[in-house]
Amino acid sequence: MYRTHLAGTLRAEHADQKVTLAGWVARRRDHGGVEFVDLRDSSGVVQIVFRDSEAAEAAQRLRNEFCIQVTGTVAVRPDGNENPEIPTGSIEVSVDDLTVLSAAAPLPFQIDDSLDVGEDVRLHYRYLDLRRSGPASAMRLRSKANKIARDILAEEDFVELETPTLTRSTPEGARDFLVPVRLQPGSWYALPQSPQLFKQLLMVAGFERYYQIARCYRDEDFRADRQPEFTQLDIEASFVTQDDVIALGEKIVKQLWKDLAGHEIEGAIPHLTYRDAMDRFGSDRPDLRYGVELSELTDYLRGTSFRVFSGAIEAGGYVGAVVMPGGASQTRKELDGWQDWAKARGAKGLAYVTLNAETGEPKGPVAKNLSEEHLAGLADAVGAKPGDAIFFAASDRRSEAQELLGAARQEIAQRCGLVDEDAWAFCWVVDFPMFDKTDDGWTAIHHPFTSPSPEWTDKFEQDPGEALSYAYDIVCNGSEIGGGSIRIHDGELQSRVFDFLGISAEEAQEKFGFLLEAFKFGPPPHGGIAFGWDRVCTLLSGASSIREVIAFPKTGAGFDPLTGAPTPITEAQRSEAGIDYEPEEEGEKEEA
Amino acid sequence: MYRTHLAGTLRAEHADQKVTLAGWVARRRDHGGVEFVDLRDSSGVVQIVFRDSEAAEAAQRLRNEFCIQVTGTVAVRPDGNENPEIPTGSIEVSVDDLTVLSAAAPLPFQIDDSLDVGEDVRLHYRYLDLRRSGPASAMRLRSKANKIARDILAEEDFVELETPTLTRSTPEGARDFLVPVRLQPGSWYALPQSPQLFKQLLMVAGFERYYQIARCYRDEDFRADRQPEFTQLDIEASFVTQDDVIALGEKIVKQLWKDLAGHEIEGAIPHLTYRDAMDRFGSDRPDLRYGVELSELTDYLRGTSFRVFSGAIEAGGYVGAVVMPGGASQTRKELDGWQDWAKARGAKGLAYVTLNAETGEPKGPVAKNLSEEHLAGLADAVGAKPGDAIFFAASDRRSEAQELLGAARQEIAQRCGLVDEDAWAFCWVVDFPMFDKTDDGWTAIHHPFTSPSPEWTDKFEQDPGEALSYAYDIVCNGSEIGGGSIRIHDGELQSRVFDFLGISAEEAQEKFGFLLEAFKFGPPPHGGIAFGWDRVCTLLSGASSIREVIAFPKTGAGFDPLTGAPTPITEAQRSEAGIDYEPEEEGEKEEA
Repeated sequence: MYRTHLAGTLRAEHADQKVTLAGWVARRRDHGGVEFVDLRDSSGVVQIVFRDSEAAEAAQRLRNEFCIQVTGTVAVRPDGNENPEIPTGSIEVSVDDLTVLSAAAPLPFQIDDSLDVGEDVRLHYRYLDLRRSGPASAMRLRSKANKIARDILAEEDFVELETPTLTRSTPEGARDFLVPVRLQPGSWYALPQSPQLFKQLLMVAGFERYYQIARCYRDEDFRADRQPEFTQLDIEASFVTQDDVIALGEKIVKQLWKDLAGHEIEGAIPHLTYRDAMDRFGSDRPDLRYGVELSELTDYLRGTSFRVFSGAIEAGGYVGAVVMPGGASQTRKELDGWQDWAKARGAKGLAYVTLNAETGEPKGPVAKNLSEEHLAGLADAVGAKPGDAIFFAASDRRSEAQELLGAARQEIAQRCGLVDEDAWAFCWVVDFPMFDKTDDGWTAIHHPFTSPSPEWTDKFEQDPGEALSYAYDIVCNGSEIGGGSIRIHDGELQSRVFDFLGISAEEAQEKFGFLLEAFKFGPPPHGGIAFGWDRVCTLLSGASSIREVIAFPKTGAGFDPLTGAPTPITEAQRSEAGIDYEPEEEGEKEEA
Repeated sequence: MYRTHLAGTLRAEHADQKVTLAGWVARRRDHGGVEFVDLRDSSGVVQIVFRDSEAAEAAQRLRNEFCIQVTGTVAVRPDGNENPEIPTGSIEVSVDDLTVLSAAAPLPFQIDDSLDVGEDVRLHYRYLDLRRSGPASAMRLRSKANKIARDILAEEDFVELETPTLTRSTPEGARDFLVPVRLQPGSWYALPQSPQLFKQLLMVAGFERYYQIARCYRDEDFRADRQPEFTQLDIEASFVTQDDVIALGEKIVKQLWKDLAGHEIEGAIPHLTYRDAMDRFGSDRPDLRYGVELSELTDYLRGTSFRVFSGAIEAGGYVGAVVMPGGASQTRKELDGWQDWAKARGAKGLAYVTLNAETGEPKGPVAKNLSEEHLAGLADAVGAKPGDAIFFAASDRRSEAQELLGAARQEIAQRCGLVDEDAWAFCWVVDFPMFDKTDDGWTAIHHPFTSPSPEWTDKFEQDPGEALSYAYDIVCNGSEIGGGSIRIHDGELQSRVFDFLGISAEEAQEKFGFLLEAFKFGPPPHGGIAFGWDRVCTLLSGASSIREVIAFPKTGAGFDPLTGAPTPITEAQRSEAGIDYEPEEEGEKEEA
């Protein structure tokens, strides 16, 4: 037995007890021949003291992060020596016996949350980084989040089912990770981007309620806060409506935030339609911790001679604005900076008008191009006050202009300090459009199995840009933390959607044939949701990156600084795995 | 809302209530214009009745496995019409309203456990197979097993942590599945055979108690009951002894068998040393549901002139026997069959003696070769009675002969009907040897991180064949369901083990360098266990194969009959994934 007690659990009530502890040397201090050591284990820290000279001498050899075992007696600290900052601060352990379980080499960085260490070093020595209380508690929180979600789902009779991760590659799955199959040379598995098709099959199989905390894989170009492997809480249910799925998702979210962030979400989480979210916030994942809403000016500015606006209006597009409170006081350089910011996002620039802080008089390059009448009503039309700046966006494509204003809105909130970092603002975004127009036709916004809403089921082909779907996302502080949909379970409707998307029967058969075949055998109505579990845990732990809630995350381009993965492989591995297998030609076969 | 009640929950107390149900047509029967349908959902089955002629006509269009929604009134069945075999058998639902949610094409097989369907067809239509109560309940049991294990581990303060599945390939990892990395062409990930190295890093990181229900991958040649991806309940803890890990493992096993198999494991699960297991049962995973123990005859037969035995004895090997009760009554053909059986296992044959049922007189080819004295005491030496057969094995290598007798023991138990199929017999096998002798030296029996037991720590090099390790397996009915070890946490000891195994410092660095580096920083003593979760759930559910407890299993050579995975990939995928990337030569670079 290595220990009788956990270090962090000792209290005054343990006084005079003989205890054995095991853990790490967090700090050692020499006080004139008496050695004080902070001993850390998974439960916390306790002060241990080496008083007699022999013991103190042995203790002098201890360095930080030595792993040790000590036996000693708990003693209440003398008056005035208590440390109220730690739970064990009223006692110390007077050590009789010390065993060094293992030594520690000089550390690349100290085990101290207050030290700022570069991420590459932290991840190379992730096992030391995780000894720090911040990183360790983020991982412990994640473990608790799993339990909270699973407890709710078990209570609701959901069945936990594992789906395969060595699955079928689809011809256009350029973002699938591939795995050569030695036993079937020339054939490859794909790692799944999600359990989507399998969870729908499980509904056909009659499980009715499925969940899984599932590992998923996506071979994306590197972006900050993306990982090649990630985890989602994946849920699917049969005989459910959108409201049922939303109620379940909300139950899980409320419990998580209550238990892990100490935040009670009052009442129902508000619903925003996709249209409202775009019109008011310029985003389908609006951050509701602040206002700064968009104003549409398409009608207000109709008839303007300013080509930037009139062009968009006449093309049936959109002109809108967002107000930066106090933005008129920005320097010319700051205002020019917004142009660079907009260009970095792929826009041409960001038209603006400033309102004189005293008089409210509109100024700036755009003001010169607007009529006196348009200028006079502008502040009222956008809800601006003297001293504010008004930023404009105009485009033939409504969503393009709104997204630019939405991004400006976020930037304004940051620059003006409008974001309450302690606030939690949730919403559901519902009534997503079914389709998005592309250069060569229409594409499904969620995926081609998403059900149209009932009023569009019979006529989505007639007005595809307006057709709505039973798709929904849940958003927290501007991050999408989950999303899902009610699926199509009617074979005929599914065929119509495929037809409309230009997916031929052959293509559908090649890509989803096994799902379409399954749907011939009494598929139930079904739908589900998936939570981005790394993201949820990141928000709950207050971390700045999803890498903080992943035990061994990867950095840019999928590199693991700890193990050095990925690595080259040997010719022998390559040959054994059948990577370069060439099927024999018919002719060769006959010759052989 | 699709339903007010679950079909299987209706009872007499619901009489006269209006209910809406949704589920599948399990069976329809026409009783002279009145249609009876068994409606099945995830909760069970209820009889619904279409009495009025219009409703009955609509119901006549229903075929098996149509997905339907009905509204009707619960009615107590008339006297004599109850069905005591189902929980809803005292009532029926008189249907007013029927909605067909989806139709079903003619089925490839009926949804009926009593039908024997080929596995290829079952797995191709796995979503129909899983509608059958047997396959569905095996999957539901697995979900419950997860919860039972997690509840215990949470109670014991274990932290659930996910480890990466896109990891580092090791040069000799011929059994790793490989994944090309598009963003780092020429580099590959490997899918992990287990989280072993990562869970040890998590101990260095100070988590002290880790678990994970982890997906693992092993590219093995196809064997029945192996899957290329499989799941283990993976556990590791710091500051623990072998007894601590065994106690935890036993707690989990006891709870699983109590809750899911209705079997109370009384008292402590017995421990057998590896040596005892081999000596008595000829296996390191002995089936203790029956006796038929091995007898060693090395000393008894010393001095025999029979070369088969004396050769082994003189070479320091082993001679032993196992008794087949009543085996003397076997025909010559049956006894010859044992020779074929032994040859199929790679042995030369299986020497035997039969004892006359009346006189006990030893007969058979071997008897002629033994002295009268050896024959006279033989029955006593092996515990045989008149009418029994005695099978012998002899070899220079003790384990080789014992394994042959162990296999014969199993075969005897099967043929003689000695296996109580309702019994559960568990044991821990402990004190495994550290090393196994190979043609070119020694190899680690578990893995090279396994700690020697204390008495061997200082001297395993002196007598490597006898050196024992802190490794342990748990066995149920002859299947190894879990295993683990206390690991080496001392760098110097680890180096000695590597040295002894002929692993050079460079090789160790290349393969495990990151773990060895981690061990420089105060690694705690630690150890763990991993349960083969597919196997555990197979035993608990009484299934005949691990494929029964996997939602979408693969068959021979890793083929998925449902999706058709694996498949060829296109040239575009191949090129995009960087599979054939060739690094530029220095010279070429300069030219370019």
